[in-house]
Amino acid sequence: MSVDSIYSDLTLKNGAKMALLVMDGLGDIATKDTDYKTPLEAANTPNLDALSKDSAMGRLIPAAHGITPGSGPGHLGLFGYDPLEVEVGRGVIEALGLGIKLEPGDIAARANFCSLDTNALVTDRRAGRIETELCEERCAILSEKIKRIMDAEVIIRPGKGHRFVVIFRGADLAGPLSDTDPHREGFPIAETQPENSNCDKSKKAAQIIGEFYKAALPLLQGMEPANGFLMRGIAHQPDIPTFDVRYSMRAACLAIYPMYKGLAQLVGMTKIEGLQDISEQFQKCIELYNDYEYFFVHHKYTDMYGEDGNFEAKTKAIEDFDAALPILLEKKPDVIAITGDHSTPCALKGHSWHPQPVLLYSANSGSDKLDRFTETNCNSGSLGIIEAKHLIRLMQANALMFDKFGA
Amino acid sequence: MSVDSIYSDLTLKNGAKMALLVMDGLGDIATKDTDYKTPLEAANTPNLDALSKDSAMGRLIPAAHGITPGSGPGHLGLFGYDPLEVEVGRGVIEALGLGIKLEPGDIAARANFCSLDTNALVTDRRAGRIETELCEERCAILSEKIKRIMDAEVIIRPGKGHRFVVIFRGADLAGPLSDTDPHREGFPIAETQPENSNCDKSKKAAQIIGEFYKAALPLLQGMEPANGFLMRGIAHQPDIPTFDVRYSMRAACLAIYPMYKGLAQLVGMTKIEGLQDISEQFQKCIELYNDYEYFFVHHKYTDMYGEDGNFEAKTKAIEDFDAALPILLEKKPDVIAITGDHSTPCALKGHSWHPQPVLLYSANSGSDKLDRFTETNCNSGSLGIIEAKHLIRLMQANALMFDKFGA
Repeated sequence: MSVDSIYSDLTLKNGAKMALLVMDGLGDIATKDTDYKTPLEAANTPNLDALSKDSAMGRLIPAAHGITPGSGPGHLGLFGYDPLEVEVGRGVIEALGLGIKLEPGDIAARANFCSLDTNALVTDRRAGRIETELCEERCAILSEKIKRIMDAEVIIRPGKGHRFVVIFRGADLAGPLSDTDPHREGFPIAETQPENSNCDKSKKAAQIIGEFYKAALPLLQGMEPANGFLMRGIAHQPDIPTFDVRYSMRAACLAIYPMYKGLAQLVGMTKIEGLQDISEQFQKCIELYNDYEYFFVHHKYTDMYGEDGNFEAKTKAIEDFDAALPILLEKKPDVIAITGDHSTPCALKGHSWHPQPVLLYSANSGSDKLDRFTETNCNSGSLGIIEAKHLIRLMQANALMFDKFGA
Repeated sequence: MSVDSIYSDLTLKNGAKMALLVMDGLGDIATKDTDYKTPLEAANTPNLDALSKDSAMGRLIPAAHGITPGSGPGHLGLFGYDPLEVEVGRGVIEALGLGIKLEPGDIAARANFCSLDTNALVTDRRAGRIETELCEERCAILSEKIKRIMDAEVIIRPGKGHRFVVIFRGADLAGPLSDTDPHREGFPIAETQPENSNCDKSKKAAQIIGEFYKAALPLLQGMEPANGFLMRGIAHQPDIPTFDVRYSMRAACLAIYPMYKGLAQLVGMTKIEGLQDISEQFQKCIELYNDYEYFFVHHKYTDMYGEDGNFEAKTKAIEDFDAALPILLEKKPDVIAITGDHSTPCALKGHSWHPQPVLLYSANSGSDKLDRFTETNCNSGSLGIIEAKHLIRLMQANALMFDKFGA
């Protein structure tokens, strides 16, 4: 019997409310350069501090020891799916983020316009980061002329800037396929290849994408700087048991950026649109309090400033989150987990493998007697240093959603 | 997709340098009798202390909870192989340590002379610990007379004291086989049996070893105290992916004792010969700095004195290591891990299951703000209490050898 089916058998639906509050890339490292402080330690966080006293803490290994995850695997882990088993293509995530409802067997690719020289070599992988409007125009041209390739329906949707998404539907296809992006300038557009060369559905998908290029590139001829395009993260939608089936909870996603909405939708959460900042996100949780059991709130800026290596701005992003937190605490959900989807240490200016700190508050969590939510305190918390995928089970346990196992 | 293949896919070869510094049997336990101090705590270690401030710490479970490993599994774990999956016979390790190049399908056994009475019962399992010279003489007699058994070539090589190694080659054999050592005096030499009784190659190996005894024992008749011999750890060389293939690093072994050289060679490290003490070992790292990416340095004496229950001598062995450390730190490899292969608590006078402390230093490790490297401090480090096999992946991550996983 798998652990998942044991959890499933023990699950009681009790209407408890829980909130997963993700400060993207929250975790950081203490170094000599920052006087051995992390942004969490440097930040002024009275509301987190108050919560800390009555919380359990620990650290979450996002995917596996030493592995630096992208946002996809990072969030899938927090949602309770093993990110090493559930591989989701970036194309699928982007498509979901743009509000495209994918069907089983759809192949989705993340695409972006690029510049090609007269020898068909890529001179700018992002076409000078053209404006969204120009991207929309180009996509309209492609959509107008290319409706089908072989027996696959082709759906093209513009995103922000130079980005767009292409879906190939209804031809019994499978991914994943290699990128057509050569990943450096001065090289031609690469030919996509099935990752599993024995898979007939993938081979067909690669053939269709080859034909798509033959049809599309002539339409863009002379349209510098966006006279070509590259495709990445080409894959089909994975078959994932959705949130309500797996956890017996109705889940809402309160995110601002498309990628996180896409990820949440992939596991069956309802996207809430039109939110602008963390105060609105928390406010919306309160408004929708009776409609869902699980609220996923995503705060992007900790990651963004971590990527910039901007310690002060990351610290400020944490303080903004902290300042808005009382809006949510007015209702005080039964269980609150606060964490990151991975670490984005300022010193590394990028995602990292360091386990992210996690705080778990409920009436049943017990107190670890740690008076602030910091990486160092989390090292000695009662949750231990565990894989992120276990968090949701601890949240459910704290919500008293599990019956006793065995007599 | 296995975790190993994910790591493999993400690996970037970047020439970063790393050092695994093993103080054998380092871990210890604090007891009332030692005023609740461990040797690491009692030792004066200014250089380890200085490194501690900028390091991450944790503890390593050598094989599995509660399992006390030998040096083989202990080191295989540190080298990133699951010691519960990769079983390496002691005979193979000894043979490698003696510089015998094993071929695929070779069966190697660790042997030692013993004393037999007139009823062929073992009266001394180590033949009064005869001198190496006598061992060499006896081995020469056996080698001279026994070149083949059935279709297997027989190779006999003397070791230190009463120990020797026997290899059976070229007859399509397999192990592992049970020991012929009865493990107590007063019993006859045991008949070896295949561990897997359905394996024809192992059955044949058992038959060949039986015939080898029939040929060899008469040659030793009357040669008391070494008129018999016992065999242990009878097995074939396992098929292990080597270090360069698995980790994309050239690895050097800087050990003094044959066993550790053998283990390192088994996973494809290059043995560096002629080293006498820890200063020379560190010095050699510096000399070979450009030739390898991974340096395995083995310090034996912590274990040896732990086995003796000699707290002061174990403490001194740690201090000797600490005093020599600056030789290596002159180059400051990008990543330094300092740990044991298991614990050898003085109070237990032997190996134990207690997780060994580990210190991981790099520019990217972050600081756990622990000012000394001790068992107790390691309990609250950011690495957590994890299986030893994960260490090398954390070292690679700290060396920035892994690409991001997923988008």
